[in-house]
Amino acid sequence: MVTINGERLLGDLRVLRAMGATGTGVVRPALSDMDMTARRWLVERYEDAGLRAHIDGVGNVLGRSANPGPALLIGSHSDTQPTGGWLDGALGVIYGLEVARALAEDPATSHLAVDAISWQDEESRFYGCMGSRSFCGAFPLSVEQGLTDKDGIALADALEQAGLGGTPRLAAADHDYLGFLEAHIEQGPHLEEDGRRIGIVSSIVGLGGLVFTFTGQQNHAGTTMMAGRKDAATAMYALANGINEAFPKVAGPRSVWTMGRAVLTPNAPSIVPGHGELELQFRDVDPDVLDKFEAIAQDLVDGINSRAGATVTAAPARARIAAAHMDPGLQQHLSAAAEQHAPGHWTAMPSGAFHDAGVVCGVMPCAMLFIPSIGGISHDFAEDSHDDDIVLGCQVLASGAASILGVPGSDVGGA
Amino acid sequence: MVTINGERLLGDLRVLRAMGATGTGVVRPALSDMDMTARRWLVERYEDAGLRAHIDGVGNVLGRSANPGPALLIGSHSDTQPTGGWLDGALGVIYGLEVARALAEDPATSHLAVDAISWQDEESRFYGCMGSRSFCGAFPLSVEQGLTDKDGIALADALEQAGLGGTPRLAAADHDYLGFLEAHIEQGPHLEEDGRRIGIVSSIVGLGGLVFTFTGQQNHAGTTMMAGRKDAATAMYALANGINEAFPKVAGPRSVWTMGRAVLTPNAPSIVPGHGELELQFRDVDPDVLDKFEAIAQDLVDGINSRAGATVTAAPARARIAAAHMDPGLQQHLSAAAEQHAPGHWTAMPSGAFHDAGVVCGVMPCAMLFIPSIGGISHDFAEDSHDDDIVLGCQVLASGAASILGVPGSDVGGA
Repeated sequence: MVTINGERLLGDLRVLRAMGATGTGVVRPALSDMDMTARRWLVERYEDAGLRAHIDGVGNVLGRSANPGPALLIGSHSDTQPTGGWLDGALGVIYGLEVARALAEDPATSHLAVDAISWQDEESRFYGCMGSRSFCGAFPLSVEQGLTDKDGIALADALEQAGLGGTPRLAAADHDYLGFLEAHIEQGPHLEEDGRRIGIVSSIVGLGGLVFTFTGQQNHAGTTMMAGRKDAATAMYALANGINEAFPKVAGPRSVWTMGRAVLTPNAPSIVPGHGELELQFRDVDPDVLDKFEAIAQDLVDGINSRAGATVTAAPARARIAAAHMDPGLQQHLSAAAEQHAPGHWTAMPSGAFHDAGVVCGVMPCAMLFIPSIGGISHDFAEDSHDDDIVLGCQVLASGAASILGVPGSDVGGA
Repeated sequence: MVTINGERLLGDLRVLRAMGATGTGVVRPALSDMDMTARRWLVERYEDAGLRAHIDGVGNVLGRSANPGPALLIGSHSDTQPTGGWLDGALGVIYGLEVARALAEDPATSHLAVDAISWQDEESRFYGCMGSRSFCGAFPLSVEQGLTDKDGIALADALEQAGLGGTPRLAAADHDYLGFLEAHIEQGPHLEEDGRRIGIVSSIVGLGGLVFTFTGQQNHAGTTMMAGRKDAATAMYALANGINEAFPKVAGPRSVWTMGRAVLTPNAPSIVPGHGELELQFRDVDPDVLDKFEAIAQDLVDGINSRAGATVTAAPARARIAAAHMDPGLQQHLSAAAEQHAPGHWTAMPSGAFHDAGVVCGVMPCAMLFIPSIGGISHDFAEDSHDDDIVLGCQVLASGAASILGVPGSDVGGA
């Protein structure tokens, strides 16, 4: 049975954590100097593991196995949120490295083809899941041209600065893969709350978003009577609170919605604001629930526009992302490995967060494995997981990978 | 009867408008280069009018009459909001200049003592009504020390940069004044809506403010279930909307309240925000109404803290400003002048906006005169008034000033 090296795994995770370390968190956004430093370090680690490694034209790092036959692709992303946690993405990347090493070291599995990957810009500095989209042929020039980050830096300039200008890009069509496995921290509370140590992902929830733009009349806060006001803030608070009161009536058990971005202009205490912007994001596995959320939001918008005061328009914040379903066969291999290493302490579950696997499943079978997040915290410097969960998750992934690759003598049953 | 020169008045207003002109508005914040340019220009205009003029240590510009006897002080402020209108403050400053000139030119009034003034920083770049507070002994060192603007520029550095370091400051105690007259645009809709051309201010409304600070737990917007969230935004929208629903039940006919400043951290669409800040400002002539508003806000805060989710604290945004009552005798002089020049088209009214006269009335009798604002718009580039209203307002102020100074033969009756 293939066995991973837990100390080596934790050691490499800690080395990667140091690149961009800020307090207990990490600041390593896509194509930053720290991100490229980490990616060049990863090329070396892949090479040490016997893979042929390079960085492609958008910054994806691929380590290719020299073994023949359709390969199993394993990894995640090594870029972080602007103020990110140390495990989000990084965990799955080092899992891919460690699984490739562990299989290569075991005579029973050293002939198997495992490619390891770190996708670029999952966290949307320029474009969410840019690296996996590029790999899957879902990053057309029409989208790429004119992309900038929030500070106005052009993607083209950032790629040039990173030394990637003119470098060829990976394409799924040029490879023959059995499938893609992505491991990740859960980023939510369910595994911890339920006393489970491994989650096998059934599907990634769908996601919709609306941007509400409020138009009023900027004016003096002392002299403009309430009845005559067109106050963008008043309309914004009414809509946002209305959404929070109405959505629970149609929500599913795991529906979530968030209005974490709100901006008033000029944002001064003694001025009636004339402009506002509010962004709503909502997620569920069931597209009907997403449709109902959107319809409720539109009803509330219509209600505000039927009254005096500021007016509001709703526009899609992004194209609706449909729920992505993981491959049942691959899930079965991972579930069997989980039952072997954590009997009774694993569960099937949906993913509330989006992941590269949600893109890659458009071109090949995918599966995902979660380990518990302490306190359910993620996208925050406080994000963390227990060392023994980190090690266990990698062992399950390695066993599952060997099983998927059909190694005789693997203890794990599979399809 | 003293007669002002309307063309000269409008001409000087337009010259002042050019200093900091931005589109139809003006950007001339206190102690900026443009503000000091305007103040040095004003010194020249005061000198041309026969006054002895200088800029004091906080930037107040005073033009002193050479005539004996207690003087009447007339003026307003020439600094603007960060994106201000062209008349707010500037109107009253040029009125003071024009009234001084008009009285000096008329043999019947040339012996009267009128001092003209432009106060500094009424608009709160560093500290609201800083100039008039300094003049009235209400700007203690404990407040002054450590003052910065929103960009972190220290007041001390800005004064040094403006060439005012070490310059003596005016003090009301060093002068003998009959009182202070301030003319201003209404900044609200009442005069225009009621077909009135002049408002004589009875009182300036009181003002209170609260800053609400929300503390939650920053987290991933996809994976953190609704029931487990501590979402600073959700609490903020509930409190703000609750205030907007509850305040009308205790509000007076001219009560106003505003929540024009709201900030979420990190303010990203896919992150449950862990921190928020909301500022509430409320105004009324009746202190009981202000007390009721504060009590309602505290009840709503307690309600939010009794539920799961983010918590909120309320702290005073500023010391409560009590309503300021204008001097009945001075009001009577101005009212008589208004009736003389705009019979049937003037009214007594409260001021919903705060003004330097609300500070100065602590040390001497004060009165205020309003002219209509087109569309009630102020604190906005679109702020404007009709030329004939601008000229009429100055004529009423000049006649009222002559009457207050007891000129024999003034047509205006007075106390």
